[in-house]
Amino acid sequence: MHVTLLGGTGDIGEGLALRLARDSDHEVTIGSRDAEKAQTSAEKYEQILADSGVETTIEGHENADAVAGADVAVCCVPAYHLTDTIDAVADDLGDAVLVSPAVGMKRDESGMHYNPPGIGSVTQLAAATAPEGTPVVGAFHNLPAGKLAALDVALDWDVPVVADDDSARETITSLVEDIEGLRPLVAGGLANAAEIEGLTPLLINIAQHNDGLHDLGVKFQ
Amino acid sequence: MHVTLLGGTGDIGEGLALRLARDSDHEVTIGSRDAEKAQTSAEKYEQILADSGVETTIEGHENADAVAGADVAVCCVPAYHLTDTIDAVADDLGDAVLVSPAVGMKRDESGMHYNPPGIGSVTQLAAATAPEGTPVVGAFHNLPAGKLAALDVALDWDVPVVADDDSARETITSLVEDIEGLRPLVAGGLANAAEIEGLTPLLINIAQHNDGLHDLGVKFQ
Repeated sequence: MHVTLLGGTGDIGEGLALRLARDSDHEVTIGSRDAEKAQTSAEKYEQILADSGVETTIEGHENADAVAGADVAVCCVPAYHLTDTIDAVADDLGDAVLVSPAVGMKRDESGMHYNPPGIGSVTQLAAATAPEGTPVVGAFHNLPAGKLAALDVALDWDVPVVADDDSARETITSLVEDIEGLRPLVAGGLANAAEIEGLTPLLINIAQHNDGLHDLGVKFQ
Repeated sequence: MHVTLLGGTGDIGEGLALRLARDSDHEVTIGSRDAEKAQTSAEKYEQILADSGVETTIEGHENADAVAGADVAVCCVPAYHLTDTIDAVADDLGDAVLVSPAVGMKRDESGMHYNPPGIGSVTQLAAATAPEGTPVVGAFHNLPAGKLAALDVALDWDVPVVADDDSARETITSLVEDIEGLRPLVAGGLANAAEIEGLTPLLINIAQHNDGLHDLGVKFQ
């Protein structure tokens, strides 16, 4: 498949790009609002992979160009850039499945808190913003970017996946499985996304308060 | 310590009673609105423990009598009985630490959803209801009752703990550690309880949608 990481110059984009390029045969393209920045990140990722013994080509383009022809577009931007980013590529998404990993959070003196948009969750906001006919899947919400991008770290995490479209959900659970150490778990429809997104601030709070724990993901057992 | 399980005749109460009685030296008392029901459950738990080779005494009393002299009172009732139960024992709590494991949930056609009270979380509602001077700790929110009560199942789960009172939090993290296979993880103050409670409906949704997974708990790693 051709997987485009919109806003793929950020930390979650870097981790997904490196893991997908190393562990799968999928074609990975980095998108950014700035074509030059996308190209620079793509070259950086190629170099990191080459240093790990993986020779591969990663392209970098402006978001709309990057998504052209993609089978999957992962929206790797912060929650507050989500709707702008989707609007900017709406005419070029074609048949791509749009994946939303973003989480809305706010920090106060107690710690990190889930801060969903009025529609219920960021994933549902992505679905409401996506063009008609573009299936939206929620996934990758609970992955800590640091360890994801550290290729020497062996992963052992679960990835809850929500979708209303069966075919799109199967495309993404398969993509999750292609990354070594990630297990996709179906968590129902998009209406169940808030409970997944709300787990991320808990991971951050626990990492903050317990010595020796950082960059936490989750296993359900 | 003397640990009283208010509403301890229910499923989470049974699991905590059996595990604490088997794995620790704490004195366990079952409370119920109905003294006879408390006594019947206490005898049932003693018999289950005896069948597992553990000879121990568990008392059962009406909630207010059960909590007299307790060091820890765990409010093992559904969220909608929480305030009634705390009010009923308020004059008898003494120096006990009050523990709230309840989660407010609602089910719709999509699945299970977190349904917190207006104050933000059930744990914070417990704190607002408890008499002045009674420290409240949130813990045990994410434990599936079925496996908890099945003594032949080896546990391997994390228990996020929130509290505003350091001494009370340490009392409860120590209590969690006394149960084999449970690891307490500090998640900050009571204001961070919602993110813990919100994890429980996700556990239920994942169990519903994935073959072979049921009675799920969680590990942070």
